[in-house]
Amino acid sequence: MLTAAIDAETLRDSVDAISALVTECRLHIDDDAIRTRAVDTANVAMISLELKKTAFDSYRATPTEAGIDITKLKNILGMIGKGDKLTLNLLEEGRKLELSFGGYRYSVTLLDVNTIRKDPNPPTIELPGKATLSGTTLNSAIKAASVISDKIALGIDPDTNSFYMEAEGDTDHIKLDIGRDELFDLDPVKARSLFSLDYLKDMGRVMAKANEVGVHLGIDHPVRFSFDIADGNGHVEYLLAPRIEAD
Amino acid sequence: MLTAAIDAETLRDSVDAISALVTECRLHIDDDAIRTRAVDTANVAMISLELKKTAFDSYRATPTEAGIDITKLKNILGMIGKGDKLTLNLLEEGRKLELSFGGYRYSVTLLDVNTIRKDPNPPTIELPGKATLSGTTLNSAIKAASVISDKIALGIDPDTNSFYMEAEGDTDHIKLDIGRDELFDLDPVKARSLFSLDYLKDMGRVMAKANEVGVHLGIDHPVRFSFDIADGNGHVEYLLAPRIEAD
Amino acid sequence: MLTAAIDAETLRDSVDAISALVTECRLHIDDDAIRTRAVDTANVAMISLELKKTAFDSYRATPTEAGIDITKLKNILGMIGKGDKLTLNLLEEGRKLELSFGGYRYSVTLLDVNTIRKDPNPPTIELPGKATLSGTTLNSAIKAASVISDKIALGIDPDTNSFYMEAEGDTDHIKLDIGRDELFDLDPVKARSLFSLDYLKDMGRVMAKANEVGVHLGIDHPVRFSFDIADGNGHVEYLLAPRIEAD
Repeated sequence: MLTAAIDAETLRDSVDAISALVTECRLHIDDDAIRTRAVDTANVAMISLELKKTAFDSYRATPTEAGIDITKLKNILGMIGKGDKLTLNLLEEGRKLELSFGGYRYSVTLLDVNTIRKDPNPPTIELPGKATLSGTTLNSAIKAASVISDKIALGIDPDTNSFYMEAEGDTDHIKLDIGRDELFDLDPVKARSLFSLDYLKDMGRVMAKANEVGVHLGIDHPVRFSFDIADGNGHVEYLLAPRIEAD
Repeated sequence: MLTAAIDAETLRDSVDAISALVTECRLHIDDDAIRTRAVDTANVAMISLELKKTAFDSYRATPTEAGIDITKLKNILGMIGKGDKLTLNLLEEGRKLELSFGGYRYSVTLLDVNTIRKDPNPPTIELPGKATLSGTTLNSAIKAASVISDKIALGIDPDTNSFYMEAEGDTDHIKLDIGRDELFDLDPVKARSLFSLDYLKDMGRVMAKANEVGVHLGIDHPVRFSFDIADGNGHVEYLLAPRIEAD
Repeated sequence: MLTAAIDAETLRDSVDAISALVTECRLHIDDDAIRTRAVDTANVAMISLELKKTAFDSYRATPTEAGIDITKLKNILGMIGKGDKLTLNLLEEGRKLELSFGGYRYSVTLLDVNTIRKDPNPPTIELPGKATLSGTTLNSAIKAASVISDKIALGIDPDTNSFYMEAEGDTDHIKLDIGRDELFDLDPVKARSLFSLDYLKDMGRVMAKANEVGVHLGIDHPVRFSFDIADGNGHVEYLLAPRIEAD
């Protein structure tokens, strides 16, 4: 059971974060938070999202699961004005989620949770390097690299105490160095891995809204992006597998 | 004969209202107003439009007819800035409409009125229910319904004293209730009919600019939308045939 | 050799002016200016552009040539914010142009100048008529004509002391007269030539930013557009061949 009220913008941010990777997901509704963990169809990227009770104006829930068509929910939320309040209602026996706002009442049929991929296991990967920077800086770097290539290297150079990104086109090359001064935080452990820009571009658009994004890196290891949503009342982690660097 | 000056924006609104249904029409130019009545090619929707002499800065006309390529006129008006003044000249013998603005002089060849569909007869349909609401509210409701369906039901519920719209998708459902308080006016006669959103979306964009739109309804009957243009110096009526409600 | 710093917007304007006609060009870098002269693939239009040393914040160069992929440069400049400073570095032996801005360092491989069309000879055409008007007025006229036709006539009428443009569609006609009062300058020599709007539309978008554009005309002769860029520290000339007027 779930009866909750939330600012439409806050829910929209959460749904956008999920829709960057998957078109449907399994929501775990608990008495203290709503959580989801999902892997994209190609098994390359994972999202873990938690939206705490405190992100809601009111929240009453008993533990349950709900299969959500994220694309459809995104379309519906696209119609709601900024600052509008939204009421969510998930009836215990019912297989429907009801969204009310203004005079509107939307009733969306839930997906059968058994048809949605099982939750992936939480990854246990050591990523010793870490740089914390603003979401807009990170997103700009991703966009800049995508002008000339479809791959990007992210790394940490402990010698220069900097976080860097590098991309190689057929004939061109771009490098961005961000020194210690311009970072919120740096664990200067040598790290460098190559990633597909396909995934990063979608993630970048979401992360552009975050004040601080923690970028956790290793050597030829996945990257983990970690950032808050809902004014700190929610949290997202993206995990992205590396590409093999061809020489 | 016609020699008239008008604010470009005012003429643009009239042309937009017509272009939502037809690409060409027959203008009836009289000494007190310009009028047109046209039916779309599928015979599903009709527009009646009147633009009074008072909507013009200056207006001199003797009764005549002119066949207008609405799409072309819309393109030309699209180039004129907001607040610009436009002079219209229709020469008696000539088969051309001259539009002047700034230093520009456009000369548009008229269509042969005999090649344009005859004016439809004014409809004589009893539509006892009526709700008056803002054009933006009506347009938002149409857009909301079109996210999940291609049909919309419009109705009046005399029990709850409200106007409502309802749409049904494959698995989803949306309902909007607008109570007496939020309506400008209500004739609470039980009414409900189903309409194609294809037509309504185009009409909705036009009606979004109107402060008040009268929605006239019956049971499985057409709907008539009635609203002013040109600061009350013109009037538009849209008539739209119902769809059969499949069970 | 070239080491220079410039406002990104200024360089962007120059690149836009070139990209209206060609996708690659041969830059002549001198100690007082950068120049290029290029003809489009159909041999219909020519650009001559000069960007003086004074347009740069700092400028140090020894004479050299560089083959530039204009489309790529335009994409890169599209990422830089307004007001950002850009550093250009062309290494003597190297075949690369380095662009630095913010923490970014772009390295673009130059084109082999031998693969780029030879510089066209400077044209020696007498164009006795001349009208000087604002770039926005000129661009609006070009856009207005393109609504109804793919050709435009530009002319000067010494009898009425005016510059005019005229376009003829299948059934429609547009004329714009600009009198002496609304022109910055007029050499009232009778002139009229017909031009393809394909080329003019791209040039028009560039010229729309210029305060004053000199339009040099003859009778069935090319047109030369002449205007400043970079706050007067640069200059562009477009030359466009006429079309034959069919009767």
